[in-house]
Amino acid sequence: MQKTENIFEAEADRGSAGEGLTKIDPAISRLIDHTILKPDATEADVVKVCQEARRYGFASVCVNPFWVPLVRAELAGSPVKVCTVIGFPFGAGATETKVAEAETALRGGAQELDMVINIGALRSGEEDTVRLDIRQVAEAAHRAKAIVKVILETALLDDDQKAAACRLAKRAGADFVKTSTGFGPGGATAHDVALMRAVVGPEMGVKASGGIRTLSDLKTMTAAGATRIGASASVKIVESSAV
Amino acid sequence: MQKTENIFEAEADRGSAGEGLTKIDPAISRLIDHTILKPDATEADVVKVCQEARRYGFASVCVNPFWVPLVRAELAGSPVKVCTVIGFPFGAGATETKVAEAETALRGGAQELDMVINIGALRSGEEDTVRLDIRQVAEAAHRAKAIVKVILETALLDDDQKAAACRLAKRAGADFVKTSTGFGPGGATAHDVALMRAVVGPEMGVKASGGIRTLSDLKTMTAAGATRIGASASVKIVESSAV
Repeated sequence: MQKTENIFEAEADRGSAGEGLTKIDPAISRLIDHTILKPDATEADVVKVCQEARRYGFASVCVNPFWVPLVRAELAGSPVKVCTVIGFPFGAGATETKVAEAETALRGGAQELDMVINIGALRSGEEDTVRLDIRQVAEAAHRAKAIVKVILETALLDDDQKAAACRLAKRAGADFVKTSTGFGPGGATAHDVALMRAVVGPEMGVKASGGIRTLSDLKTMTAAGATRIGASASVKIVESSAV
Repeated sequence: MQKTENIFEAEADRGSAGEGLTKIDPAISRLIDHTILKPDATEADVVKVCQEARRYGFASVCVNPFWVPLVRAELAGSPVKVCTVIGFPFGAGATETKVAEAETALRGGAQELDMVINIGALRSGEEDTVRLDIRQVAEAAHRAKAIVKVILETALLDDDQKAAACRLAKRAGADFVKTSTGFGPGGATAHDVALMRAVVGPEMGVKASGGIRTLSDLKTMTAAGATRIGASASVKIVESSAV
């Protein structure tokens, strides 16, 4: 693990009383979109995730769109970004709806949009449909100074389709490609992250998400080329990075 | 199985050459929303489902919103309805987005909208949020002479929450309550269908969906009070109803 001087002190909010203050590696925390996307998450669950994100200095809190205004309020004054999802988790809506959803989220305070590609269109060879779908959401995001990450749902694609999706996302002006929703038949793999990094080059971000539950998982993904990690086990991951 | 005089002849499109024509019970076919909602469904998959629905006389074809214009074209001139899903499968979007999605689908030709409730809001006790979310989608549907079915995702709710959701759907002017998305941790049960029927009374429809794969499953659900069935194994179900 990389040692760093600007260690920040975080109060452990769980575990045994003996833990007290632990020192967390902020270079790890800053990689992580602290994520709660399960459909039955309650207001109390979302508030707790926001408090954890402030405490640990995560990159963002990632929630379903309904919760964006609450998360903006909870994170006010902190450097933690508000991240939400568009067309999630199937990506099978109309482009018009994805744009409307993006605009509503941006007005509500979202700064990062993780959109799902039109998986069925890609698998039907309709590459223009996929590209224009991404482009319209990316343009809406950029008008609001937000960024867009493009979720491929790699477990439903073969390698050619993954590469095609990366090229389309890049051409469409997206900021990141992202492996998985976390609700598909599989999550991030080092193979997919490396493939995606090879296709998009160094200019774009690559976010690995789905099944990343340990510091070792995280390091496997960053070694393969990931520059952002989506996780819900984020607190456990950073606490195991404590020095 | 109920015998009926207006048996309609359906050509079996699969199975061995020896099958030839089978006689299907149209009272069974007419109960079923023939459904393809998996996110990786291709254009060819959707077209095939439309052809099956015409041949067997299903109530509707139920697809993700991107496919609505294609399904409208494929079903033109048939009595089979175009059904789509709103806020699917998490229900955790903004009401504004659900309404925009509904309006786009209705313009595209949708005649039935299966919307997912805001599960997290319900579980947080925000009943007004849940009711107004349903009401705005129902009003959009009714303006276009379409109907709305309200998906509870029963596997994520306790019985009190299921009953509350049914009352809210009824007060909001919905046409049906529906058990499940088919992508949650559980599908339709006779217990839930009976509970839903008891709460909404005889005036509303009850749709059972999720895990209904046989004629016996279907009959269990109708006996419990279901008046519509969502299934993807619809062809197998009606072929086993052949007389």
